Formats: sequence, C-alpha cells, structure tokens
Amino acid sequence: MLPGVGVFGTGSTARVLVPLLKAEGFEVHAVWGRSEEEACCLAKELGIPFHTSRSDDVLLHQDVDLVCIYIPPSMTRQIAVKALGIGKNVLCEKAATAVDSFKMVTAARYYPQLLSVMGNTLRFLPAFGAMRQLLVEGYVGEMQVCDVRVYGPSLLDQSYGWTCEELMGGGGLHTVGSSVIDLLSYLTSARAHRVHGLLRTFVQQNGLIRGIRRVTSDDFCFFQMLMGGTGSRSGGVCCTVTLNFNMPGSFVHEVMVVGSTGRLIARGTELYGQRNGSKGEELLLGDSGWVGPEVKEMPLPHLQGLSSMVKALRQSFQAHEERRSWARGPVAMAPTFEDGLYVQTVVEAVKRSSCSGEWECVEIMSEEPDPNHNLCEALQRNKN
Amino acid sequence: MLPGVGVFGTGSTARVLVPLLKAEGFEVHAVWGRSEEEACCLAKELGIPFHTSRSDDVLLHQDVDLVCIYIPPSMTRQIAVKALGIGKNVLCEKAATAVDSFKMVTAARYYPQLLSVMGNTLRFLPAFGAMRQLLVEGYVGEMQVCDVRVYGPSLLDQSYGWTCEELMGGGGLHTVGSSVIDLLSYLTSARAHRVHGLLRTFVQQNGLIRGIRRVTSDDFCFFQMLMGGTGSRSGGVCCTVTLNFNMPGSFVHEVMVVGSTGRLIARGTELYGQRNGSKGEELLLGDSGWVGPEVKEMPLPHLQGLSSMVKALRQSFQAHEERRSWARGPVAMAPTFEDGLYVQTVVEAVKRSSCSGEWECVEIMSEEPDPNHNLCEALQRNKN
Repeated sequence: MLPGVGVFGTGSTARVLVPLLKAEGFEVHAVWGRSEEEACCLAKELGIPFHTSRSDDVLLHQDVDLVCIYIPPSMTRQIAVKALGIGKNVLCEKAATAVDSFKMVTAARYYPQLLSVMGNTLRFLPAFGAMRQLLVEGYVGEMQVCDVRVYGPSLLDQSYGWTCEELMGGGGLHTVGSSVIDLLSYLTSARAHRVHGLLRTFVQQNGLIRGIRRVTSDDFCFFQMLMGGTGSRSGGVCCTVTLNFNMPGSFVHEVMVVGSTGRLIARGTELYGQRNGSKGEELLLGDSGWVGPEVKEMPLPHLQGLSSMVKALRQSFQAHEERRSWARGPVAMAPTFEDGLYVQTVVEAVKRSSCSGEWECVEIMSEEPDPNHNLCEALQRNKN
Repeated sequence: MLPGVGVFGTGSTARVLVPLLKAEGFEVHAVWGRSEEEACCLAKELGIPFHTSRSDDVLLHQDVDLVCIYIPPSMTRQIAVKALGIGKNVLCEKAATAVDSFKMVTAARYYPQLLSVMGNTLRFLPAFGAMRQLLVEGYVGEMQVCDVRVYGPSLLDQSYGWTCEELMGGGGLHTVGSSVIDLLSYLTSARAHRVHGLLRTFVQQNGLIRGIRRVTSDDFCFFQMLMGGTGSRSGGVCCTVTLNFNMPGSFVHEVMVVGSTGRLIARGTELYGQRNGSKGEELLLGDSGWVGPEVKEMPLPHLQGLSSMVKALRQSFQAHEERRSWARGPVAMAPTFEDGLYVQTVVEAVKRSSCSGEWECVEIMSEEPDPNHNLCEALQRNKN
C-alpha cells in the first residue's frame, strides 16, 4: 500500500515532484512553505488538501508516512532529522555542510527500518543505469578516465537568496557538482580519495543583485578526483569535471568514461558507446521521448531521473501491505544519507583545494566535530 | 624571389610539407634523414635532387636559404642554432627542453634579420585567425574561460622510440599540448603565469613495446592555466585543457572560449559562436573543404594550419627580390622562438605540477642555467 506524502518546499522541484507522485498513485496530503501564502498558493495549484508554514504540522500529520524535503540546503538537516525521529520515511535534498550531513547520517543509522534517500536523481536515469551495467560487464575494459561537463545558464534565483551565497549551499559545485560526484561514485563503484579544484565567481553582480550585495557562490568550477586505489601515480580512475553556468541559451550534460578497450558517453539522456577498433559511435540507449512537463529550471536528465526515482519508490512501497513498510530491492540503487555525507565531504574538499591550491584528501567524518572548534573556523573564514 | 629549401626529417610532417612547399613554388633542394637509406627513399619519392644523413651537407648547401626542421625534439636545437649561425632562415619544430629552447632564442636574437619560426601551425588555421579577430572585437565580451579538449588515438610510433620517452619530448603534453598552449596565448593575447596539471601513462606497454621496455610519456594529460592578470582570485582568463590519446577511432579537437556576453567554439576546422540571449549556435566559418592529402598521423587542423603557414611563408619571401630576404607582415602572427621558449616553460611547469601536486609558477628563463646544476637535477630525476 502506498504511503501518504508530505512535501516540504514550494520551488520548482516540489512543483514537478507532486504531479509525478500523483501519477504513480501516491496521495499528497500536506505541503509546507516558508510563508503561509506560498504554501497556500502551491496547495491550490496542485490540489493538496493541507498547507502550512509550520514544519511540525506536516511532520505530525497522521496521513503523512513519507516526507519529501525539497528546500534550501541550510534547512534540510533539521527537517530530515526530525522526520526520522518521529518515524517517517524521508526523501531529502542535500544539506549545506558536512556536519549537517553527518547529523542526518546519525539519524538514519538510528532508524535503519525507515527509508532515507538523498534527492540526487541522476542514478535513476536509465542512461546511467545502462552505463553502469555496461561498465560492470567490461564494455570499456579497465576504466581510466571519467570526463564530465555540464554547461548551462546561471543558477541564480531571480532575487537575492541562498543560491547567491556559497556558505548557504549555493553555487554550481554544491548544486550540480554534488549530483555529478554522486553519479561518478555510482558509475565507478569507487570513491574519491584526493581532489583538486578551482572555483570562480565570474558574475558577482547583475541587474538584480547589486549595490552592496555580491554573489559569493561559484558560477564556474573545475575539479579532479582521484578515485579509490592507492597513490597518485598508480592510482585508479581519474575524474575531471567542468561546470560552467555562464552559458545562457545552452545546456550540455555529458558524461564520458574512457577505458582500455572502449568508451561510453552519455549525452543528455542518451547513451553512446565506442569500442576500440570500431569506426564510430553506436547509440546504446536512445531518448525515450519525455512526455512529462518541461521545466525551465530543471534539465532533462534530472527531470527524467526524478521521474524514475518516483517510480522506484512506488515499487518499493507497493510490495508491502503496511503503509510505512517498503522493500529494499527497487530502491537499492538510491543514494543513502551515507552517500550524501560522502558527496558533501568531496564538495568541501574541492572548496578547500580551490583556496589552498593543493590536492586535498577526502576524509569522511566519523564523529561530530566540537562545535566551538567549528565556530572558530567559521570566524576565521569570514575574516578572509 | 622564393628561397631554396632544405628539409630535415623523413617523418609524416616532412612528407606532407615538401608537396605543400612545392605547390607554393618553393624549390626543395635537399633532404636530411637519420640514415642514408631513409633520406634516399624520401628523396626519390618526392623528387628531391640531393639527400644525405650528414646535417652539414644540407646546412652548407649553397641553394638552401630556408631550413625546415621536422625531426625529434631532442635534435632540433642543434640544427636550428647551427643553421642560424651560418645565416639561413629557419622553420623549426619544438625542442625537448626549456634549456634547448633558450639556446634557440639566444641564436634567434643574435640574428634578428633571419626568419626564425616555430612549427606550431594552429595559429595559421583560418578558424583560429577568425576566432582571435572576433575575440579582439568583443564577440564574447570579457573572456572568462577557455576550454580545450583533444581526443584521439595513441601518439606512439610503431616501434620503440622518442615518442615513448618523456625525457625525449614524447607524450601528449609535449607533442599536442605545446600547440594548444601556443594557440591559447595567441587567442587570449596573454600568457600563463600559474599552471596545475596531471599526467598519466595508462598504456605502459603494448604489443610492440614490451619486456623491459615501458612507455614513460603521457597518454592522458589534464592541465589548467591561469593567464596574465594578478592573483588567483581576481586573475584573468582560466584555461582548462584535456588531452586523451587512448581513444582510437575518434578525433576531437575542440577549443571553446566563454566570455561575459557570449562564446566561440572551434570544432576541428570550423568556427561556431553563440551570443548570450540568442537561441542557438551560428556557424561563423565553415570547413573550406580540404583538397590536399589526408594524413593519418596528422589531424586536419594541424594539416590545414601547415598549409596556411606555407602560403604565408611564400607571401613573406615573394615580397623581396633577394632570395634570403623576407617581409615581416605575412608571418607576423607566426610563433617566434621566444614563443617556443614560453611554451616549453609551461610544459615543464605542468610536468612539475603533476609531480608536486601544486600550482607551479611559469618563470621564463632569462639566462642559461649552470650545466652542472642541470646534471644534478637530471640524476636526481632518474633516481625517482
């Protein structure tokens, strides 16, 4: 039996998610918005019976068994941890910091019978599922290099907000880079152990963000990850990622894996391959023809991934009679909160590297840092 | 009046160059090969009256006024410096080290009336000429990012030789990266002041190179250059270059410059552009339809660039009555030996960075280093 759903957020993703949930048979009982007005507006638009601006009203809603959290990064941790604490299943967007991610992991570990899944949806895109399968089967031989590029228009909101602020989780690396980092660990079955990166904010002000306000989040980011294995000479796969969000009017989403006997390339939602010795690329998985809504802010790979994830959730819950029970099988590929912590750790290591100019190690937090130490660091950081 | 030409080298470039020279009206009087046999073979094939394996016989040949040096990097300096020393004009492939490049610069400075041009031919490709012109005219606004990728099959020769040896000037960075570094300084009118890079040799042995022999030259290279300007935060254009020569069956040569108001992309020999606000790319310069020979080892952009350079040389010499005199105008855009030293310095800084993992400064040599100090470094390097 499908669980009742409560949605946090009134942004573009929430707006897409609700119809997708309904199409799969989920009932969306409640929506939370930052203001009564925003919540009311979305509830009316999408036919949701209950709306509020108080988070507890959704979390404690008796018909809500699955909480979907699509709100700015700085607020996700608080809601996710609370939701798990009162026994609700959680689907959640990324947090703003590794410390927040760690708190989410702790909560998820404490309630292993609850579903806790990160909102990175690229893993669910059929092209990447097929890509991973072919990599496992040895299509490219021994993996050598992954090369990812995402180009598009500005990620900034129309008005000044968290998307402009690096410390609030804004910027290309945090917003889009996260999903790429997650995807690459999924595709290669390995994790980054050292990273190097360079972040830039080329557009610091625009027609809407001016005066004393400045954008601090990156609109260009470029990083390398050395995966798994040992030293930098002998080590495993080498990933390079280029993100450029100063390219209005275009959208490029390309993931290439080069190996000893061939290569696989996902362009947008399509998968191509070429084995060494063959003359040209072969189309391995064509575009399935997206029939859902078009969303300006959400590129097709993410949109289709989200759609596939909702389908997987439906299968997972359908398998059980009880509303809150779910089967692991259909969502086994989903990114866990542990994956979320890994991704956040890489993001922060890349940022450190951009400041230090050096390769930085990826060290996953194993205990919560002393909050006072943290405060010192934040103060020091603000000084620069 | 066109000068008589002597050619050093019997490889694929020399084999292409001779017909191109002849087509423009140059007479090729002499060819040098490492062995009598190789020289004789090429002379017969291309109808060159004189061949030899002794370099002085070409350099001192009375009908030779222009010496074209297309031989392995470790040998170029010696011939180029000697040729200038006896008053011949020189067109020369890159050297193996910055010290050699510096010696070439010293020779060229000593004989400023002689033509001394590096063999990097990408500058001469019409697409890049047009690209530079549009950049100067402000098509992209303020330049932000240059993104270059070159993908292709292995650069190794059939048999073991200098292409396998990093210290002999082999590898993607030295062979292809050099021309990209030169091109980017031409396009941006700036030079790299800091670089970061990563080199890899994924294929260390193959069917032909085995046993105790190993390839030490890179088949994958990835580097970033911060151009001109000041610090890394405020600094100028940011260049990223990806070279991958583990991709048999494909050839990608893409140079993209992204700026504040638009972007320009050269794919192969074609130039595309898109201004912010427009819906799609426009073709700015199409493929002119190459009618010359196809050369497996030489990608079309280099081949067409070489052809354009030979045309420019013809115009330069044609302007004067005297066989050895030439006009600066037609070859003003050509890379000088000073450019060659800059490129070699960047190449070495990228290699250093790949070892150290740190950003390395690009410091152009201003006096010849103590040879003993050099020896020590070489010994130390071998130890690792």
